[in-house]
Amino acid sequence: RVNADRLWATLMDMAKIGPGIAGGNNRQTLTDEDGEGRKLFKTWCEDAGLTIGVDKMGTMFATRPGTDPDALPVYVGSHLDTQPTGGKYDGVLGVLGALEVVRTMNDLGIKTKHPIVVTNWTNEEGARFAPAMLASGVFAGIHTLDYAYDRKDPDGKTFGDELKRIGWLGDEEVGARKMHAYFEYHIEQGPILEAEEKTIGVVTHCQGLWWLEFTLTGREAHTGSTPMNMRVNAGLAMARIMEMVQTVAMENQPGAVGGVGQVFFSPNSRNVLPGKVVFTVDIRSPDKAKLDRMRARIEAEAPGITEPLGVGCSIEAIGHFAPVTFDPTLVTAVRTAAEKLGYSHMDLISGAGHDACWAAKVAPATMVMCPCVGGLSHNEAEDISKEWASAGCDVLFHAVVETAEI
Amino acid sequence: RVNADRLWATLMDMAKIGPGIAGGNNRQTLTDEDGEGRKLFKTWCEDAGLTIGVDKMGTMFATRPGTDPDALPVYVGSHLDTQPTGGKYDGVLGVLGALEVVRTMNDLGIKTKHPIVVTNWTNEEGARFAPAMLASGVFAGIHTLDYAYDRKDPDGKTFGDELKRIGWLGDEEVGARKMHAYFEYHIEQGPILEAEEKTIGVVTHCQGLWWLEFTLTGREAHTGSTPMNMRVNAGLAMARIMEMVQTVAMENQPGAVGGVGQVFFSPNSRNVLPGKVVFTVDIRSPDKAKLDRMRARIEAEAPGITEPLGVGCSIEAIGHFAPVTFDPTLVTAVRTAAEKLGYSHMDLISGAGHDACWAAKVAPATMVMCPCVGGLSHNEAEDISKEWASAGCDVLFHAVVETAEI
Ligand SMILES: NC(=O)NCCC(=O)O
Ligand SMILES: NC(=O)NCCC(=O)O
Repeated sequence: RVNADRLWATLMDMAKIGPGIAGGNNRQTLTDEDGEGRKLFKTWCEDAGLTIGVDKMGTMFATRPGTDPDALPVYVGSHLDTQPTGGKYDGVLGVLGALEVVRTMNDLGIKTKHPIVVTNWTNEEGARFAPAMLASGVFAGIHTLDYAYDRKDPDGKTFGDELKRIGWLGDEEVGARKMHAYFEYHIEQGPILEAEEKTIGVVTHCQGLWWLEFTLTGREAHTGSTPMNMRVNAGLAMARIMEMVQTVAMENQPGAVGGVGQVFFSPNSRNVLPGKVVFTVDIRSPDKAKLDRMRARIEAEAPGITEPLGVGCSIEAIGHFAPVTFDPTLVTAVRTAAEKLGYSHMDLISGAGHDACWAAKVAPATMVMCPCVGGLSHNEAEDISKEWASAGCDVLFHAVVETAEI
Repeated sequence: RVNADRLWATLMDMAKIGPGIAGGNNRQTLTDEDGEGRKLFKTWCEDAGLTIGVDKMGTMFATRPGTDPDALPVYVGSHLDTQPTGGKYDGVLGVLGALEVVRTMNDLGIKTKHPIVVTNWTNEEGARFAPAMLASGVFAGIHTLDYAYDRKDPDGKTFGDELKRIGWLGDEEVGARKMHAYFEYHIEQGPILEAEEKTIGVVTHCQGLWWLEFTLTGREAHTGSTPMNMRVNAGLAMARIMEMVQTVAMENQPGAVGGVGQVFFSPNSRNVLPGKVVFTVDIRSPDKAKLDRMRARIEAEAPGITEPLGVGCSIEAIGHFAPVTFDPTLVTAVRTAAEKLGYSHMDLISGAGHDACWAAKVAPATMVMCPCVGGLSHNEAEDISKEWASAGCDVLFHAVVETAEI
């Protein structure tokens, strides 16, 4: 078993970097805080005897050598970046859990045939730069490096410039590494494990996603002196599209979600009807046909809302991944580990996207999950117990050792 | 008649300060650009022989002496501040039109019994600091000076600090001046004059306003892994309240408007359901009972929207003025001037709020309006013709001279 206290202490040390305002973290990708977190993580990796490589997306790879020079490594990782008001565990548990796996191997003097590579992917959250899972997406050949470098944050700063600025632009070609397997340990971010009173989620699938960025064009006009029938009200169109997205999601139950997290009104003045409204619709389903049907329906119904209002509407798909089926052999390794260790477990479909989804494109991949209190994540109040954290890490340890072969 | 070319050239010179991005202006109150605009205006006033006083709200009073030392002044003014994406005429025409009245008096050697005071009120727009018409509101005793100084912009900067910073904190007690009469010349900001093919609006009333700031409290949560039935979706509640406000406005036709210009999502991340949504509802009507009924209905219906969603809702009235009836004698002076000059005219109810609404609390007051193209205002594309500008200024000149007594 892993060292539960050490894992917990390491999590708490990382949480000191980029503190939030309500007990969580604001350590968004490529900020100074992200740079500081990376530095601390690097020190820990070096102390554990690992060798650090960094690729041109800033992804960090910390290698523990294997005994067979020809064996491809087993990658184990997640991300250290957070939402603007993020929790202490989302992603972090997966990176520091991987580090704990290696530390435990060191403690026990375990040598594996395949090297182990503890991995910290850049910009998993997609909060500062859309889309999410950007570095793993480039790694898997989904996006080009140029596309990634050109992504802009709300202040107009580019990913490429910010990566250089914080000093974590590496020299490795992105995607050059070949993987024997990829494991990712993560909090569930949803309510199922807790409700079912299971300690371990054996993740068999991940649901797919579309991010549809709407740009609505109305006519800026005075809220007082512009009669109702002369308004070209982009804000009202947005409200109706939000309701429509809600309807589409509800009519596709079970197995679908839809919502809006980001809205920009322009000029955003109390007495000006907005001339421009930009917002992003996030829809997901584990069923690819359903997911695509939802997207098609939203796109088909939008003109029926905007046109009668005279509002212009353009829709750009700025994020997408199809539902993923994880590798059956690795899934079995996780389930077997949970059983051997005596942890209650169940099969699970991940509701959130993860770097494992892109890794699955280029290698056998799977995930381990532990519960989180109230299913809450992307919230500073995100919470897990030390026991949950170490249980999942135990399972990860056994599945990784099994796959890396002693 | 006034000098149309000089008025127009003066308008164009002011428009060079704080240019917008689409041909209009961004000269928001208490910004560096506002400071620069004030300096230029001061120079023009001094060149016209006027004496400048500044009060503790930064309002500028430029006096042309009268012949009777006991006669109270006739105030003529409006505002030089603009919306973030504002036009070149909203407010500016009223201040520079008042200056043109004085310049024309100088040209013609006209002496009046009552002094004339060209006035530039601070923060009429309310874009940077709510509420609108802030300085005239303090002048009329509606708000205290402390209340005004404490108003915050979206960056948390206070009105008081910013007034000092740009160097326009004056020493006059606010509201100490007594007025014989107050005139304000303004573009209509609505479509009626143009549609009715009238050059002059004789403003008999101004409709009333409520600004209701909603703070909705949801639960920040992951857009992907949070099932639909576990969401506490403050954004969806906002969308439904927007639709409800639209319904309330439509069901109160004619003589009512309602809309939303400003929205803040928090944390405003694509994959986070907002934990907090703040937005301002703007409702107006010339009928006080109807206006208050609309407010009451919106406040009564909001819980029926938020409670089923589990969303917390608090509503603060952050701006208000009741409908105003302007002084019949001054209104007649405006109508008579238009007739004498042969300009087509009609009685009008102002759809926007103006400093004249607060001035009317402490003195006889009224307004003159000219058309604007397409009724468009609070938009950089706001437009008027030189002929409209000078026609309204002619009417203003005659009404002011009549009231100030030769
Ligand atoms: N795990 C996680 O929160 N990933 C961010 C991408 C997503 O929105 O699913
Ligand atoms: N005239 C004008 O636009 N005033 C701003 C206050 C309001 O919203 O009516």
